[in-house]
Amino acid sequence: MQTNMRGMDMITTQEWTKDQIDTIMEVAMDLKKKRALGIPHAYLRDKVLAMMFFFSSTRTRGSFEAGMAQLGGHPAFIDSRTTQIKHGDTTKEIGDIFGRYFDGIAIREVTWGQGNKYIRGVAEASRAPVLNMQCDIYHPHQILADLMTIIEKKGDPRGKTITVSWAYASSYLKPISVPQSLILLATRFGMNVRLVRPPEFKLMPDIVQQARDNARKHHGSFEIMEDFEAGMAGSDVIYAKSWGPLLVTADPEEGKAITDKYKDWITDERRIAMAAEDAIYMHPLPADRDIEVTSAVLDGPHSVVFDQAENRLHAQKAVMALTMS
Amino acid sequence: MQTNMRGMDMITTQEWTKDQIDTIMEVAMDLKKKRALGIPHAYLRDKVLAMMFFFSSTRTRGSFEAGMAQLGGHPAFIDSRTTQIKHGDTTKEIGDIFGRYFDGIAIREVTWGQGNKYIRGVAEASRAPVLNMQCDIYHPHQILADLMTIIEKKGDPRGKTITVSWAYASSYLKPISVPQSLILLATRFGMNVRLVRPPEFKLMPDIVQQARDNARKHHGSFEIMEDFEAGMAGSDVIYAKSWGPLLVTADPEEGKAITDKYKDWITDERRIAMAAEDAIYMHPLPADRDIEVTSAVLDGPHSVVFDQAENRLHAQKAVMALTMS
Amino acid sequence: MQTNMRGMDMITTQEWTKDQIDTIMEVAMDLKKKRALGIPHAYLRDKVLAMMFFFSSTRTRGSFEAGMAQLGGHPAFIDSRTTQIKHGDTTKEIGDIFGRYFDGIAIREVTWGQGNKYIRGVAEASRAPVLNMQCDIYHPHQILADLMTIIEKKGDPRGKTITVSWAYASSYLKPISVPQSLILLATRFGMNVRLVRPPEFKLMPDIVQQARDNARKHHGSFEIMEDFEAGMAGSDVIYAKSWGPLLVTADPEEGKAITDKYKDWITDERRIAMAAEDAIYMHPLPADRDIEVTSAVLDGPHSVVFDQAENRLHAQKAVMALTMS
Repeated sequence: MQTNMRGMDMITTQEWTKDQIDTIMEVAMDLKKKRALGIPHAYLRDKVLAMMFFFSSTRTRGSFEAGMAQLGGHPAFIDSRTTQIKHGDTTKEIGDIFGRYFDGIAIREVTWGQGNKYIRGVAEASRAPVLNMQCDIYHPHQILADLMTIIEKKGDPRGKTITVSWAYASSYLKPISVPQSLILLATRFGMNVRLVRPPEFKLMPDIVQQARDNARKHHGSFEIMEDFEAGMAGSDVIYAKSWGPLLVTADPEEGKAITDKYKDWITDERRIAMAAEDAIYMHPLPADRDIEVTSAVLDGPHSVVFDQAENRLHAQKAVMALTMS
Repeated sequence: MQTNMRGMDMITTQEWTKDQIDTIMEVAMDLKKKRALGIPHAYLRDKVLAMMFFFSSTRTRGSFEAGMAQLGGHPAFIDSRTTQIKHGDTTKEIGDIFGRYFDGIAIREVTWGQGNKYIRGVAEASRAPVLNMQCDIYHPHQILADLMTIIEKKGDPRGKTITVSWAYASSYLKPISVPQSLILLATRFGMNVRLVRPPEFKLMPDIVQQARDNARKHHGSFEIMEDFEAGMAGSDVIYAKSWGPLLVTADPEEGKAITDKYKDWITDERRIAMAAEDAIYMHPLPADRDIEVTSAVLDGPHSVVFDQAENRLHAQKAVMALTMS
Repeated sequence: MQTNMRGMDMITTQEWTKDQIDTIMEVAMDLKKKRALGIPHAYLRDKVLAMMFFFSSTRTRGSFEAGMAQLGGHPAFIDSRTTQIKHGDTTKEIGDIFGRYFDGIAIREVTWGQGNKYIRGVAEASRAPVLNMQCDIYHPHQILADLMTIIEKKGDPRGKTITVSWAYASSYLKPISVPQSLILLATRFGMNVRLVRPPEFKLMPDIVQQARDNARKHHGSFEIMEDFEAGMAGSDVIYAKSWGPLLVTADPEEGKAITDKYKDWITDERRIAMAAEDAIYMHPLPADRDIEVTSAVLDGPHSVVFDQAENRLHAQKAVMALTMS
């Protein structure tokens, strides 16, 4: 167990040691049990978290807000549209000043090419820890909840196979932060990671390289596949979700045209049957129902999406309690 | 006193026993006294209430938010415009996931034909209690505050006459949830209920039938009248507010044309003088001043609208404390 | 030390005695130390502050929200766009009802000719204290933070010279509440106050008269100058910010044309060098960088703008603790 996380930023899990992440898991499980039993755990009494949203959210907002309050603190929901943020305020000003007012600053800014820069800028100027609630590159808290769910359902992740797959969606070009953070963390926990996606849906090369390095160091494996069904075969964890072809184009129309070439990348019962018999189906939600995944799978026996969503709460409470106390 | 309300949904008072509602009244009075004296009453310490608003509000938001905080908990104000709710999330997903994050879910969704369905859908999926902050059919917390006010001002409601009247307003087609919830609850407390409205402003037939049944069971009476002034005559409680002719049309223009036929339905001093000498004038606010009711009445000696508005706070705190603890 | 501030409104510092303001300073310093040391100071446990914003804000919202939460209470952020305030609710209704729900009401309404009237209207009807988070005439909490900063940096303000100067900005016609509140309070603390501005940028005559009277009573001085550089000469505190020519015109275009005559009124290194060697540069932020003030000055050795911004938190916590407990 590590005890040196006070004041740390959670921008990407790559900046945290494996031991520190193990501690987060341990604390998250303990907080989950405490909530189930009604045992008080107000480790952040009267502390305040600024939650800055530059993009709307349901689960992220709900889980951070509820979690902070359950820890005895106050979450301040700051919507970019109802303040004058970005109206004359530099990241240095926001970071320096909010770092004095608040005990933590959580930020969601997914704009391609800008989100992570903004968060880094605020973090550099802030004396309080900065938590990444999703940027264009990373979504660390989602993936911590995912890891927790995998451990709960599958035990030790080492040697287990996880399929991190692209899937079709028609709604809009979704960020690539989930698959990127996922291949980074799963490889550090010794999993056999299959990144499955059509050729136009590459992830950032340096992220892929880090995933490869992680796999080598942690006795896991990492491979890239372009065949949706082959990617499913025999896998223990099917994590299939859509993202935009952002490394090719960030233009919505162009991206849509590319995306529409792969309408048949939908997770259905036939395909989930190709995975291991006790495979779990994961998705961070919201899913494009019957487009990204069939209702039969989403609501079916392999799906753990609600438990996965719940774990956002517990994992984030662990990070907040460890960094902000 | 009943002690079995933990986990119950408050969607309509009809689903609560008379004894349970008596308990809410008792707890509400106690909480009111405690607040007046500054006696701590943090019965929901570190619990979290999601307050989901699909329609703006002043009193409802203020009273739920303040009440939850005074009970030691945290109210999370979730405006439908600043989250991606309804952007891929089904009621099952909201209910299941928010039911895990939060200790209670309060919802205001007044869209005709949709509001109640939405709330029922969330409640079905949620493990946490769901509180109706007004839907298209019911407004239970308003009416609990109204009942509390009637008891405070008039003592035992049995045998007292209440006039639940339509009134003219020019602003927009208001929901019918207030008069509907009012005739449902007043009849259960043995009041003589007069529902007074022009022919186009009928309430839902099954609600009216339930009110009739309630009256019979609880030794009250229920009658429908179409003459504004006759409705006032000798009454103890004048509760006159506008609503839309929603059973005839939900079209704003058509509705306005029908409404404009009854510009004369304004509560003024001449008319209030037809009621009992010590009659009270009630309105849930905001009123269309000098259109729905004259300022002389709204600000006059019969009016109890501010005490009535205050009781929103105490009644809702009672419901929250009893269901969420 | 004064002990009679419970229930008082903070609309302008003029309505508070010098002794009371000394007490605010003392409490603010104590709360600052307590926060630095992590000493609990939950003087408003389970109290609730309504924060009504009719105009967006970063520092004001952040500092009030964080401060209230650190005191153990709950700040309710009420954005005028997400409630039906001003949609049928009079100031009397808001004041009377919110004064019953909440333990304090903070309001930001800067509309020229309306803001202060609105706040006064609410305060008149409210049983809970009303705090002015900036109106068209006053910005008392900013200036309390400014005074605290001056005392921290310069010691006893008596006999020190402060330059309250207009500066050029291109963004929009800013309120005159900061310079007005500043000349009112600085004169009461015996400072030599120089109000420096082009002829079109006069402040309200009765505010200027009050400042003159304050100076006479408190052995300070007050003079009006129209030469930017002469205003700086030898001064201890340079407080130079833009405001609109609101006493001449509230029309944005006309105002802009007048403003553009004085593009040269920018605080730069050459000019700051005219002030006292150890002069401090103050600005309430956000500044129009390199328009109102050069980056070299804003980020330079004379600038105390971040410490000044931080003191918003501590000064406001003092006011809240003293009025709302």
